[in-house]
Amino acid sequence: MEIYLDNSATTKPYEEVIETLAGTMRNYYGNPSSAHSFGFKAEQKLREMRGGIAKSINASSEEIIFTSGGSESNNFLIKGFAKPSQSKLNADIITTKIEHPSIINTFKSLVDSGIKVDYIDVNASGRIDIDALIESITKDTQVVSIMHVNNEIGVIQDIELIGKLIKEKSSRVKFHVDAVQSYGKIPIDVQKFKIDLLSTSAHKIHGPRGVGFAYVRKGLIPSSLISGGGQEKNLRSGTENLAGIAGFAKAAEIVFKNQHENFNKVLEVKKYFIEKLSEVEGVIINSPLAAYFTPYILSVSFKGVKGEVLLHALEQKGIYVSTGSACSSKSHKTSEILEAIGRTSEEQIGTIRFSFCESNNFDEVDYVIIELNKSLKFLRKMNKR
Amino acid sequence: MEIYLDNSATTKPYEEVIETLAGTMRNYYGNPSSAHSFGFKAEQKLREMRGGIAKSINASSEEIIFTSGGSESNNFLIKGFAKPSQSKLNADIITTKIEHPSIINTFKSLVDSGIKVDYIDVNASGRIDIDALIESITKDTQVVSIMHVNNEIGVIQDIELIGKLIKEKSSRVKFHVDAVQSYGKIPIDVQKFKIDLLSTSAHKIHGPRGVGFAYVRKGLIPSSLISGGGQEKNLRSGTENLAGIAGFAKAAEIVFKNQHENFNKVLEVKKYFIEKLSEVEGVIINSPLAAYFTPYILSVSFKGVKGEVLLHALEQKGIYVSTGSACSSKSHKTSEILEAIGRTSEEQIGTIRFSFCESNNFDEVDYVIIELNKSLKFLRKMNKR
Ligand SMILES: Cc1ncc(COP(=O)(O)O)c(C=O)c1O
Ligand SMILES: Cc1ncc(COP(=O)(O)O)c(C=O)c1O
Repeated sequence: MEIYLDNSATTKPYEEVIETLAGTMRNYYGNPSSAHSFGFKAEQKLREMRGGIAKSINASSEEIIFTSGGSESNNFLIKGFAKPSQSKLNADIITTKIEHPSIINTFKSLVDSGIKVDYIDVNASGRIDIDALIESITKDTQVVSIMHVNNEIGVIQDIELIGKLIKEKSSRVKFHVDAVQSYGKIPIDVQKFKIDLLSTSAHKIHGPRGVGFAYVRKGLIPSSLISGGGQEKNLRSGTENLAGIAGFAKAAEIVFKNQHENFNKVLEVKKYFIEKLSEVEGVIINSPLAAYFTPYILSVSFKGVKGEVLLHALEQKGIYVSTGSACSSKSHKTSEILEAIGRTSEEQIGTIRFSFCESNNFDEVDYVIIELNKSLKFLRKMNKR
Repeated sequence: MEIYLDNSATTKPYEEVIETLAGTMRNYYGNPSSAHSFGFKAEQKLREMRGGIAKSINASSEEIIFTSGGSESNNFLIKGFAKPSQSKLNADIITTKIEHPSIINTFKSLVDSGIKVDYIDVNASGRIDIDALIESITKDTQVVSIMHVNNEIGVIQDIELIGKLIKEKSSRVKFHVDAVQSYGKIPIDVQKFKIDLLSTSAHKIHGPRGVGFAYVRKGLIPSSLISGGGQEKNLRSGTENLAGIAGFAKAAEIVFKNQHENFNKVLEVKKYFIEKLSEVEGVIINSPLAAYFTPYILSVSFKGVKGEVLLHALEQKGIYVSTGSACSSKSHKTSEILEAIGRTSEEQIGTIRFSFCESNNFDEVDYVIIELNKSLKFLRKMNKR
């Protein structure tokens, strides 16, 4: 038995994705920058894929810049616009306390160059304080960066409302959204949501690792993170990873065709999981069944155990999960978001993230609940002694 | 008939590389950062591949940082150490006039932040003026960046001698080598050559696109280009592209096993090509048969034709080549290196780069020479009218 419930860390690539990627390596090995027809064939393929990806967020082709993943997209879009303002009073950038490390650490790296960053609080349900956000926007604000779906507990921010309010307050501010955990799972419309900059990553939707894209609204010109031969409209140099991009485009094609259906499937699994958790003792659900929580993530705090120990106990039974946030799950920091929603530090340490994809099912949940009960009973007894 | 002579732009991936990559996607989809055994299995795989790659340049595992390719490696290693010095007189960085755009444009992007760059000349045979280089090193010099093999004409710089002389002059200076065109083709020993920082790219050695590595000598800590979850010793964040890295490691394994044999094979092909070119009129060889030219590249200026037109004529016959440098072959700038070795601007425009791999052969050369003669005759006649 092998039950993979760590889909927010990375997903199993679809077989079609693997085949598309391999086929592209075999048949389109020309360099899109080469002038001959072999290069032209590669360039055409690239254009075709860019078009499909653009459509998936209601953008146009020229607004899509392919990158090596979510972290690069976040770094590129933030560093590409972060210039210290004249004023030393107001923040140049506004973000939240619950962003992914690829946002938080990007901001930290900018402080030395004189960039001022404001971190907006989230309330007890994990949603940001929109009033405080809008209030904090000044004439010096260059970028507002808000994640769509949080990777630890799955809370969804109201990007549509936030986009509207930001633009009402100031049309100059660039609105960046880290959509790595939402892309392909929850509808995104960059026009409707008034998003200027957006980051995604292929490997969260059964695509290859090492590929992502940055959406840059037409008219905006970030400075490039990677300078060189001038690929990607001179915004991201380096020979294009055509096969990886083809794999990404294939994954996107599949998940977008099934977006609604997958969502409902996963929602049923999460519902069933939460229902079954009522049979388990000492449990706090951090990702309730609310409209502003993604069904793809279920964070649970287990009283009286260490998450890490529980993780390894489950692993013995072929169940793969994360503690806290996957990307930094080996480092043992406390979690801003778990703190914000009221988890004590003991509860934080006892937190497990189950994250789903559309192929997870009720039988798996039944098995997990049985093993969870066994492990918890054993571990809690051990701890008491 | 399909004759691919654009191997310095990008190579056809080995079938074993494609299969390794696909197999890794199928079987190692865990996130190396995940705490469970699935992640651990991926991490072990990563460690194994890092070891193999490190050995290939006589480095140790901990000195290898995987990236998305040559351009990222160059940007990372240069920007990671470029801090403006107090002195406004001396250069912070010394490089050459003939570097790849991913170096040249990185330096250009740094000028705004107060970094001063010195560009060393090359002589009429394309080699840099080593005396001038060493003389220009001062106490303010932070990085010296010299490419190993030039991508346009294939001239090899004497990295071993340069490394020795740099370190004799100043042990503080960090020596960076862009080895994208030499890695796997010409021996590199970072210890012997006293290299501190080195850039490579997988797709130039029949590996996948979108993968490369940066070698960073133990003890040196560049600031990261991509901040985030802390992967790659906190020097390069982003979920590791395990499958791409596996493909890279496989390609490296194959080329290093055959490095010497491949070199001699390609050298024979280049020799034969040059011999045959004596039957063609109005030809200048920019990449002679000298020890300080790679056999993998043969740049030829054809009098009285435009390289771009000749390229398309050859393409009609299934022959794929580049004009000037592939990476920027769509932009029509004059070439620093062709200028330095004495090509007039007309000759520069008439330049074609043939670049080889070990599977090219004499029959292909025969065919190319026939078609070249036909095309040249036709095009030159057209031009006369
Ligand atoms: C000398 C040299 N450096 C760097 C690069 C950039 O490598 P990549 O295309 O993998 O970013 C290239 C080729 O494109 C090159 O020839
Ligand atoms: C919200 C969020 N942003 C960014 C990233 C980084 O993406 P990648 O690993 O592709 O660099 C992740 C996941 O790792 C994430 O969950």
